[in-house]
Amino acid sequence: MIYLDNAATSFPKPASIYGALNKCLNECQGNPGRGGHLPSRMASKALYEARLSLSELFHSSTPENVVFTHNATEALNTAIKGLAKKNSHILISDIEHNSVRRAVIKLQEEKIEYSIYKTGENASKTLDSVRQNIRPNTCMLVACHKSNICSRELPIAALGRLCKKYGIYFVVDASQSAGSCDIDINKIYADALCAPGHKGLYGIMGGGFILFNNVEAEKISTVFEGGSGVNSKDDEMPNVLPERLEAGTLPLPAICTMRAGADFVKKVGADRIGEKERALMMRAKDMLLHTKGIEVYCPDENDGCILLFNFKNIDCEDGAALLDKSGICVRAGLHCSPLAHNSIQTPMGGAVRASFGYFNSPREVELFYKEVKRIACGVY
Amino acid sequence: MIYLDNAATSFPKPASIYGALNKCLNECQGNPGRGGHLPSRMASKALYEARLSLSELFHSSTPENVVFTHNATEALNTAIKGLAKKNSHILISDIEHNSVRRAVIKLQEEKIEYSIYKTGENASKTLDSVRQNIRPNTCMLVACHKSNICSRELPIAALGRLCKKYGIYFVVDASQSAGSCDIDINKIYADALCAPGHKGLYGIMGGGFILFNNVEAEKISTVFEGGSGVNSKDDEMPNVLPERLEAGTLPLPAICTMRAGADFVKKVGADRIGEKERALMMRAKDMLLHTKGIEVYCPDENDGCILLFNFKNIDCEDGAALLDKSGICVRAGLHCSPLAHNSIQTPMGGAVRASFGYFNSPREVELFYKEVKRIACGVY
Repeated sequence: MIYLDNAATSFPKPASIYGALNKCLNECQGNPGRGGHLPSRMASKALYEARLSLSELFHSSTPENVVFTHNATEALNTAIKGLAKKNSHILISDIEHNSVRRAVIKLQEEKIEYSIYKTGENASKTLDSVRQNIRPNTCMLVACHKSNICSRELPIAALGRLCKKYGIYFVVDASQSAGSCDIDINKIYADALCAPGHKGLYGIMGGGFILFNNVEAEKISTVFEGGSGVNSKDDEMPNVLPERLEAGTLPLPAICTMRAGADFVKKVGADRIGEKERALMMRAKDMLLHTKGIEVYCPDENDGCILLFNFKNIDCEDGAALLDKSGICVRAGLHCSPLAHNSIQTPMGGAVRASFGYFNSPREVELFYKEVKRIACGVY
Repeated sequence: MIYLDNAATSFPKPASIYGALNKCLNECQGNPGRGGHLPSRMASKALYEARLSLSELFHSSTPENVVFTHNATEALNTAIKGLAKKNSHILISDIEHNSVRRAVIKLQEEKIEYSIYKTGENASKTLDSVRQNIRPNTCMLVACHKSNICSRELPIAALGRLCKKYGIYFVVDASQSAGSCDIDINKIYADALCAPGHKGLYGIMGGGFILFNNVEAEKISTVFEGGSGVNSKDDEMPNVLPERLEAGTLPLPAICTMRAGADFVKKVGADRIGEKERALMMRAKDMLLHTKGIEVYCPDENDGCILLFNFKNIDCEDGAALLDKSGICVRAGLHCSPLAHNSIQTPMGGAVRASFGYFNSPREVELFYKEVKRIACGVY
């Protein structure tokens, strides 16, 4: 099997995450923050260490600003809905995932409008589009750091500076960048950085996080309310982070693996991981660009780990199924990002996505190319 | 260590759940519903089998009605907020957990009111209190099946019938009953049954579910929106269950362990598990009722797995800490249920909760009693 669907969930994972999982299951049998007995205290300690590791990875000095969620969708919904103000306006980019697009569409029920700013040609035009779309009541800008369909990278530091200037919240979706490039939350002026645990941080499925930066907890509206282990008598969730946004039992096993993944990323270096993934993708792209019967989308932008293409005469789903027959795992369709597919103008059904990971090898790229070429030639 | 905090999270777990976890990690490496390749299909298959097992456990013939969440708090918030109608009224019992109490308090912002019905003396008075509090615009009744502080059991079948009569939604919090008594969703007339995966179903932390029954998907408002793997172009979440309420990547490892736990419960028998837990609790209660310096709360109701008590001259937190020194794990305080503590009139700081599990032994109960007695006598 050649696994090229790392944008959906990474595989394989570093061996250390399984060690972390076993350690969690063996030593942290209690519910963190729910009791003063040893197994609960061990769980709370593991939870705090994970917060610390995550905050360090993104250069935050405040582990309490790490709010654990269960996936990136919950992180983005919680950050966007938590920070959105009534009767306001939100700006999202034209490459946002449905976890942003559908969340802001839903917010229209609460009289919160949204507009879409254009990205693509260059950073300067992206910033121009933001300026053109900003309104007096704009309260937030959401930017996907790197597209989940083609690795298009948005100029997040410049966008962050612009948000600072306009005094609006800046929410960054780092689902496809966390772990594969060095992100300093201070340098990008993000108020909230959201990501899953099971992609570039190599955790098992079931974890995610929001890293806040200088946001007052009481200004964040809660989406879920429940037990937090503290101040039980209060009618509302606690007015402090992370407790305010962490209602109910946390997914400690997923969090411990995410932490082990974050430690792996720190040890290898996020930039080094990203460079390796990019090199694998570039190798594949160079070959596909010269393959008859293949269309590569936005080839000048595919410079992360994701390569988007189509077989000219084969439906993308069929193409992916043929690759699967050869043991090659890619994902076809719209990848929950119809906005992005529309922006880069793939056909109606979408395209085939090959997303490379740190553990893929040049040899696997060769085999991938060989199979793509065979299918493109009609030999199947 | 003697673990008596099963109401917070169960420990130990049946060995089979670790086998299920390893199987999931070894065979289901893809993201379920996100791709047609083998690892994703294997993940989707495991997910479906878990739905099937969960639905069977509660006598539902519709696995699609099992919506996986990440904990019971998410399940309850999603069901309550999803089914609540604008300008309506919700009834909750006087023993609800903060995951219900705080959720309905929050709904007041959307002009949805709530009232609290009284429980306690007997089923008939509980039903009377519901009748007294029901209003023309009441849209929902929420009932905790068994209290998380004293095992008080609400007459859910009768409450369900009453809801049916009034034409209102019935949401049941089975956090402390799922897995330890046979629940037939049809016989209790529940529209939504919510529970965590990591308590009576023995999963790892990070899973939960809502089992719906005859509820039209499009009538459920979504709390989170995102990718669902299908119908990406739609502006809203799909109009079918479970996809409508499962935005983003699911916690497959937690779900697979929950499924293994559900299978364990079916094999042993939920009622048999509950009887064993109850017998252990009764043994402890009988001894504590005759121990000087100990107050047992609502002794006539403690007939599930939970025993609530206090040392007469020791703060509950200090009492729990002294037990912890002897390796006995109990939880003191308000247990995220200030309503219930208020209803049964524990002191301001709450009480000590010992919650017994299927894997506890009579010998452990004896040791627990010995330590409680020693502390109550002032020997520490």
